[in-house]
Amino acid sequence: MKLATLKNASRDGALVVVSRDLTQYVSAAAVAPNLQAALDDWDALAPRLEQLYAALNAGTAAHAQAFDERLCHSPLPRAYQWADGSAYINHVELVRKARNAEVPASFYTDPLMYQGGSDSFIGPRDPIYAQSEEWGIDLEAEVAVITADVAMGASPADAAKAIRLVLLVNDVSLRNLIPAELLKGFGFFQSKAASAFSPVAVTPDELGSHWAGNKLHLPLMVQLSGRPFGKPNAGEDMTFDFAQLVAHAAKTRELAAGSIIGSGTVSNKQGNLHGSSIENGGVGYGCLAEVRMYETIEGGAPTTGFLKYGDSVRIEMFDAAGASIFGAIEQTVAPYPGRR
Amino acid sequence: MKLATLKNASRDGALVVVSRDLTQYVSAAAVAPNLQAALDDWDALAPRLEQLYAALNAGTAAHAQAFDERLCHSPLPRAYQWADGSAYINHVELVRKARNAEVPASFYTDPLMYQGGSDSFIGPRDPIYAQSEEWGIDLEAEVAVITADVAMGASPADAAKAIRLVLLVNDVSLRNLIPAELLKGFGFFQSKAASAFSPVAVTPDELGSHWAGNKLHLPLMVQLSGRPFGKPNAGEDMTFDFAQLVAHAAKTRELAAGSIIGSGTVSNKQGNLHGSSIENGGVGYGCLAEVRMYETIEGGAPTTGFLKYGDSVRIEMFDAAGASIFGAIEQTVAPYPGRR
Repeated sequence: MKLATLKNASRDGALVVVSRDLTQYVSAAAVAPNLQAALDDWDALAPRLEQLYAALNAGTAAHAQAFDERLCHSPLPRAYQWADGSAYINHVELVRKARNAEVPASFYTDPLMYQGGSDSFIGPRDPIYAQSEEWGIDLEAEVAVITADVAMGASPADAAKAIRLVLLVNDVSLRNLIPAELLKGFGFFQSKAASAFSPVAVTPDELGSHWAGNKLHLPLMVQLSGRPFGKPNAGEDMTFDFAQLVAHAAKTRELAAGSIIGSGTVSNKQGNLHGSSIENGGVGYGCLAEVRMYETIEGGAPTTGFLKYGDSVRIEMFDAAGASIFGAIEQTVAPYPGRR
Repeated sequence: MKLATLKNASRDGALVVVSRDLTQYVSAAAVAPNLQAALDDWDALAPRLEQLYAALNAGTAAHAQAFDERLCHSPLPRAYQWADGSAYINHVELVRKARNAEVPASFYTDPLMYQGGSDSFIGPRDPIYAQSEEWGIDLEAEVAVITADVAMGASPADAAKAIRLVLLVNDVSLRNLIPAELLKGFGFFQSKAASAFSPVAVTPDELGSHWAGNKLHLPLMVQLSGRPFGKPNAGEDMTFDFAQLVAHAAKTRELAAGSIIGSGTVSNKQGNLHGSSIENGGVGYGCLAEVRMYETIEGGAPTTGFLKYGDSVRIEMFDAAGASIFGAIEQTVAPYPGRR
């Protein structure tokens, strides 16, 4: 099943069911006004959403309309939790290598995860607003899951059963604010701007054999200002799967339905700077920080800059037949114009 | 105006207006089903809630009922944001002194703040559930504010205007999990259990002259298992006021209505271990970690233990006439019984 949230006058938008091929949608208002409401009572409501989905794909749904992902907000325009792991340890290894530090052994058994701001997500086609280019604006192309209620201390097996939906994320990061903020010891706060999610969230069954071992085994396609920048496979080099990440988040407190747990920047192990870029046959990168780390490791200093006003980011994933699964996150960096 | 949330079958509870003396309440269902809904449309709805409040205090409200704070959930049982500062630098100074470290100069100009979990708060009279006493269960007695929408980059003056409600917090902390977690560099996650808030949230005008300079100038009364433990004044030694804390949170992203911003453990500067405890004439402490830091500084090691199953915590604040302003947070530590 594929779900999306159309922007409307409300803070939570309107829940719609989207056809598998992303061409049609039908309102889900008769089932739930918004996605959070559906997640709050999922076991009772999901079967009714599935019925709409089946009818839509069969061409028998009443009031089906053309779907335009440009009209979408993030599936949860605001959420009660956004917790982001850093499950692709290759990314962490590069960070450490670039500053001549070791990766602690515990990082391979105990996931890194930070609590993110979830009150004001931006839409998948909304600008990335920043008050200064000097903040070091970067994308982070990721996969995330949305959970059901999870008990404190849930095992990874129990956590796996709580995965309701899968979607893509651009976890916008302000790189030049990170070092000073992490030195303070309390983690990321100002250095993480508002995140954007893919127009469409899908149930794991929709991913077929690409969803295996609680990982999504497909390349995550990333473009910067129209040029290919990355295609790392989200199923490769993921040290912690989503069940482990959800269990980590639930270690000392319950998680409520609608919690979003992210993978961290998708990153595949590659040889070196020359061989890692798309144009040189590599799989490229999910964030600018990564190519800058290769540059630092091999050349002593980064040469690639961060995003500037007018630069654009596109993040998307395609199935084996080449069809977009989640729709595209496509955003342009812009100066903040004041509160909408 | 005083507002509370009664537990009901829904995840968000039922919004009620509470009389100034906390003896009566009246349903606010005709205005907004829950507090988040009221905050979402505050400018339109608050005047109607104020009318109910005036009638309730005048004894003219229809359907007024006896108020029992034991039936309350936290005012926002789940929120879109919980960000907690560490505005009482005395607390940070003691932490650092206990490990022979300096407080960086920037800590006096740049607030510490961490992003907390907000999807599953516990009620003010709910047990503090933990799966192990070895986690080092501690209270943190704090003041917090709930905001309106705030623009990115808002000044402290603008942030001050966005403060809608004031309430108390017990930011439950798992001390023995903190050192390893902070070493990982991503801030608190598992080391912060679910927080509880006071039964009642109040508008700043309700605090009269005690609300000045965006600080709450009253002692925060803390009991441990029925014995006085702390009475630090929340208006003293607060290096950053709430306007500064809200502005800090909004530096690089908008804040949505219903964001909760906390003060951090209330902590007053005192001379030493002997003079700081209540029984020796001091103002005591807002958390067990603080007395343990005095013990470490003066005796080389802490001797006071953390909370055990069966221990209880009570946090409350009284006006000049001795009346409880927010009702009491009163919680007993217990083993986690599984998801409710």
